[in-house]
Amino acid sequence: MFTGLSAFPLTPMNETGIDEKAFVRLIKRLVEAGVDSIGALGSTGSYAYLTRDERMRIAQLTVEYAEGTPVMVGIGALRTRDVLQLAEDAQKAGASAVLLSPVSYQRLTDDEAFSLYEAVAHSLSVPLCVYDNPVTTHFTFSDELHSRIARLPQVRSIKIPGVPADAAEAKARVERLRALIPADVTIGVSGDPLAAIGLNAGCDAWHSVLGGLFPKTCLAITRAAQAGDAGAAERQSALLEPLWLLFRQYGSLRVAATAAELLGWVEGSSLPLPLQTLPSDARRQLREFLDRSELVG
Amino acid sequence: MFTGLSAFPLTPMNETGIDEKAFVRLIKRLVEAGVDSIGALGSTGSYAYLTRDERMRIAQLTVEYAEGTPVMVGIGALRTRDVLQLAEDAQKAGASAVLLSPVSYQRLTDDEAFSLYEAVAHSLSVPLCVYDNPVTTHFTFSDELHSRIARLPQVRSIKIPGVPADAAEAKARVERLRALIPADVTIGVSGDPLAAIGLNAGCDAWHSVLGGLFPKTCLAITRAAQAGDAGAAERQSALLEPLWLLFRQYGSLRVAATAAELLGWVEGSSLPLPLQTLPSDARRQLREFLDRSELVG
Repeated sequence: MFTGLSAFPLTPMNETGIDEKAFVRLIKRLVEAGVDSIGALGSTGSYAYLTRDERMRIAQLTVEYAEGTPVMVGIGALRTRDVLQLAEDAQKAGASAVLLSPVSYQRLTDDEAFSLYEAVAHSLSVPLCVYDNPVTTHFTFSDELHSRIARLPQVRSIKIPGVPADAAEAKARVERLRALIPADVTIGVSGDPLAAIGLNAGCDAWHSVLGGLFPKTCLAITRAAQAGDAGAAERQSALLEPLWLLFRQYGSLRVAATAAELLGWVEGSSLPLPLQTLPSDARRQLREFLDRSELVG
Repeated sequence: MFTGLSAFPLTPMNETGIDEKAFVRLIKRLVEAGVDSIGALGSTGSYAYLTRDERMRIAQLTVEYAEGTPVMVGIGALRTRDVLQLAEDAQKAGASAVLLSPVSYQRLTDDEAFSLYEAVAHSLSVPLCVYDNPVTTHFTFSDELHSRIARLPQVRSIKIPGVPADAAEAKARVERLRALIPADVTIGVSGDPLAAIGLNAGCDAWHSVLGGLFPKTCLAITRAAQAGDAGAAERQSALLEPLWLLFRQYGSLRVAATAAELLGWVEGSSLPLPLQTLPSDARRQLREFLDRSELVG
């Protein structure tokens, strides 16, 4: 479940609701490409902006169209109460796993975050992936806390926010965390620009924003790394540098939503206001890259 | 509306709902003490953790028991769509003003934050207070952005996150912002530990967490500052230093909720899980302070 390429699709929406047809089209692309798993309602899927009913609907649609591809569903919310409900919903919808971030408004203490994972882990019958993303959740995990949480029942993977850009430092970072967690808990890297380095450094999975749009491109990088061809993985990732530049500057979600719009896969801006797609200059850069690259699948 | 002491009550709750009786008791204390306004559903009121229906109910209860004291209602949410609904709800409930923070999951750009305030300002018939609280909303305002937003219709106040501890620097900070905003837009200080310094530096209002529990104590500080007796305001605030220490270490919400519990004003922990009240050591310090101080009203 928690190895290889996990592709995170957008949840296309507007101010009145979700665009279910566009969402299903995105899921079908992932299934056809043969991704290892689908991460519905990740940050890229804008889980935090949707109602409980909308999240249930997206979980159901993903499982329905996944054709057996394992589906992981994001269940993050501010309140433990709501997370427990979302976990139940995701399991009812047929999710193979859940992804839980410690979303915060009041900054959480380590004990509060642990208590959240503890309550949820004991309620689950499917595996849980810990979602560590300090930029959006505003919570910073210590390795000590990761170690405590990784020992809870059902916890089987940690999605880390990224790795150092230097290959040796990345390897050291992954090994340091690996030494602190049980052997059956995998490590997945996110932060697409450095994902090839993360995979080469020993991460078991890549949780990919770009993979939600261009699964074949991201599978090629993943398979190269898995085959031990670190150079090929890094070279293929380097071809995407113009994209990574935009990711760093505007955030991956705005870039992915704009790419989907430029390619005609969604109608207009598919982000919830006040979020906006790319401004005109960046939009032009993205269009030029999409036109000239072979980033088609 | 946006001058003097604005007291921010807790919204006592547990995992099944709001404790309406305890909330009404808190409101009655504020009215009896004669606070200048009540800030319902601020961060202290845990607005971010409540449903739309729960927020409507709290707004209604506050107005009902305010006996004419002006009520400001927090309408922050991740989506513009939801903020517009909450603004309508607050106005229907009889709020005299609304308080809007740019809550974020994906980090907002300045243009996105501006577009949120623009949409809401044009929809309102009551005044709006801009809520600048980078710790909880994870959005940092530039003074330039404050200046743009302060010119929108209905914007009449800015709740700033705090002032420098040095009196001269605090004065310079308030004057710098004041020079950039229209004359009819007031400045309110939050961050209770430095509020006396903020008022002495020229802030028009104090948005107070402690004022939600101990309105008389906070009114005395406010009135001293308003009368130009900076020394008296600072001396009275200094008596509360043991509390400010706990505020800084654990966050004002956890301290306020624990104080309400120790005083028997709420039943058990009144915070939404995973948030927890103070651990035992800090709880003991707080109890000792409450026992020996004259912080009774």
